[in-house]
Amino acid sequence: MNNITLKRIAEILGISITTVSKALKNYPDVSKKTQKAVLDLAKELNYTPNSFAVNLRTKESKTIGLIIPEVVHHFFSNVINGIIDEAEKNGYLVITLQSNESLELEKKQVELLLNKRVDGIIMSLSNQSNFDNHIKEIISRGIPLVLFDKISKLVNCSKVIIDDKKAAFEAVEHLIIKGCKKIAHIRGPINPQNAIDRFLGYKMALEKNNIPFDPKLVYTCENVTFEEGKTFAKEIIEQHKDIDGIFVITDLVAVGVLACFNEIEIKVPQQVKIIGFSNWFMSQVITPKLSTVDQPSYEMGVQSFKLLFEEMTHKKNGIPFAPRTISLETSIIERESTNNS
Amino acid sequence: MNNITLKRIAEILGISITTVSKALKNYPDVSKKTQKAVLDLAKELNYTPNSFAVNLRTKESKTIGLIIPEVVHHFFSNVINGIIDEAEKNGYLVITLQSNESLELEKKQVELLLNKRVDGIIMSLSNQSNFDNHIKEIISRGIPLVLFDKISKLVNCSKVIIDDKKAAFEAVEHLIIKGCKKIAHIRGPINPQNAIDRFLGYKMALEKNNIPFDPKLVYTCENVTFEEGKTFAKEIIEQHKDIDGIFVITDLVAVGVLACFNEIEIKVPQQVKIIGFSNWFMSQVITPKLSTVDQPSYEMGVQSFKLLFEEMTHKKNGIPFAPRTISLETSIIERESTNNS
Repeated sequence: MNNITLKRIAEILGISITTVSKALKNYPDVSKKTQKAVLDLAKELNYTPNSFAVNLRTKESKTIGLIIPEVVHHFFSNVINGIIDEAEKNGYLVITLQSNESLELEKKQVELLLNKRVDGIIMSLSNQSNFDNHIKEIISRGIPLVLFDKISKLVNCSKVIIDDKKAAFEAVEHLIIKGCKKIAHIRGPINPQNAIDRFLGYKMALEKNNIPFDPKLVYTCENVTFEEGKTFAKEIIEQHKDIDGIFVITDLVAVGVLACFNEIEIKVPQQVKIIGFSNWFMSQVITPKLSTVDQPSYEMGVQSFKLLFEEMTHKKNGIPFAPRTISLETSIIERESTNNS
Repeated sequence: MNNITLKRIAEILGISITTVSKALKNYPDVSKKTQKAVLDLAKELNYTPNSFAVNLRTKESKTIGLIIPEVVHHFFSNVINGIIDEAEKNGYLVITLQSNESLELEKKQVELLLNKRVDGIIMSLSNQSNFDNHIKEIISRGIPLVLFDKISKLVNCSKVIIDDKKAAFEAVEHLIIKGCKKIAHIRGPINPQNAIDRFLGYKMALEKNNIPFDPKLVYTCENVTFEEGKTFAKEIIEQHKDIDGIFVITDLVAVGVLACFNEIEIKVPQQVKIIGFSNWFMSQVITPKLSTVDQPSYEMGVQSFKLLFEEMTHKKNGIPFAPRTISLETSIIERESTNNS
């Protein structure tokens, strides 16, 4: 039944192909009776308009590509959620790929999506990625592109971000207000812009509050995992017994810090105060509950699609589009890990 | 540059379209020199074979559809991970849609995927879904279909499941071995097969151990949330002061139970023992750590794609395919919430 076409319907009903086509498209010059006959038969024959043929005509695939570092990640799965919801409202389907933080895989995936002729691409870059050839290729082909969260400043495209520097500054200032005088930072990898900005925010908050910056208090994650949090927590407390605060790149790693401190009986928040980043769901159910920076992940997905849609629409209508950057608001959520009152 | 076609390359180089096409396909009867000229020009002009045209020819879209109830869910995001990884290995892209547990949305999404002419569909049904028309439509059109986790026994298609009844039986027996004599069950909604089977496993374990079944000890989730866990925990302890064990449909809800008991100072495991289901990541980081049933979610994704691929390959080669069901092994993970030694 899959190969049925307008022609077959026309044959069976003894009418012209044009009439069948008009009936399916709800043209007023086809009688209601004929239209009903066509629709009924089309349904019986499992006829659906051939979307590939439609695509050839309109040059739109109504499909976008999404490349993210990891699906199993509370932040990214919320973003995916926002993108899929918003895309669906506008009649777009989303092909999701995960780079597993591999630049090589990311390059291959961009190629796959370009060959698939997606109408646009949304990406959060892998840790090694920067303004590489695969990104240049997307732009030189004129395919609308939006980067979110892990972006590269070098790429001239629309972006949806938070002000990581400001958010980190506020997180560290929160620790200082709570009385911390010697604050360590477990940072993200060297390359991604958001890890750089959070580190700079940490430094700025120390500086503003006349706390000398000590590079020995900065620990760098390679993979941003729970296990790294556990390992670094142990190192920090062994190497700097008088540490009284830790600002951690993300909640998953901060939960590792808490797990270690629970085991070796370092009291949080009495002895060391901890603040994370991103507000993962589990942060509110662990003991002690983790203070963190709330990052509007679902909203980030929605805004990413909206920006992409705007650019796709401009492109379709031949109107020039100037890339824009949307910066979303963050806020500090105070919970038990920084509050000893 | 997007509209460039074989014709344009032929024009520019002053050769026939057939020669251009053969050069791109690496036919031996095209001179190396001509082939190089074609490939170079194609590259300069950003030419990629029009995948829609290719699709029309081969009748394959090399794309599959995936419909799941929720993306932001530790179990489902792990399954997505497995599906995407395995699909990519085999050159397939995955369009992901989430039904938000809405039957109406699920129906619309199936239609979207069928119109998109995906080569196959993988689904976990929404709570209201059963053997409805949209599922029948997939099967009657001969589109390969695999259901996983939340399946309907009525649908004649391949399935990847766990033995929910056996797993639940083992979870409840674990509570009994640990000394529980009055065990409540927070179950999933009425419709999904996995909620039914886990409930039956609970009953079987009581029966086998001569503990009378009391329907008043069964609490039914509507939305399977953290908040429902908190609410039911309070009700259970108010209505049945002597309860000493709870078997909970899934870890997210069980974490809600633990949160409530922490607040109202019911001691776990001394006073009440708790076991969850699914082994969410957060279960090992909360206090007390949650005992649970390990469900191989990533593997479930991998196996679902493998079954779909098998059916798609059979279909392509015109070989009949008999649907199969794969049942994956589960195991009990004992942690602090059931262990008071």
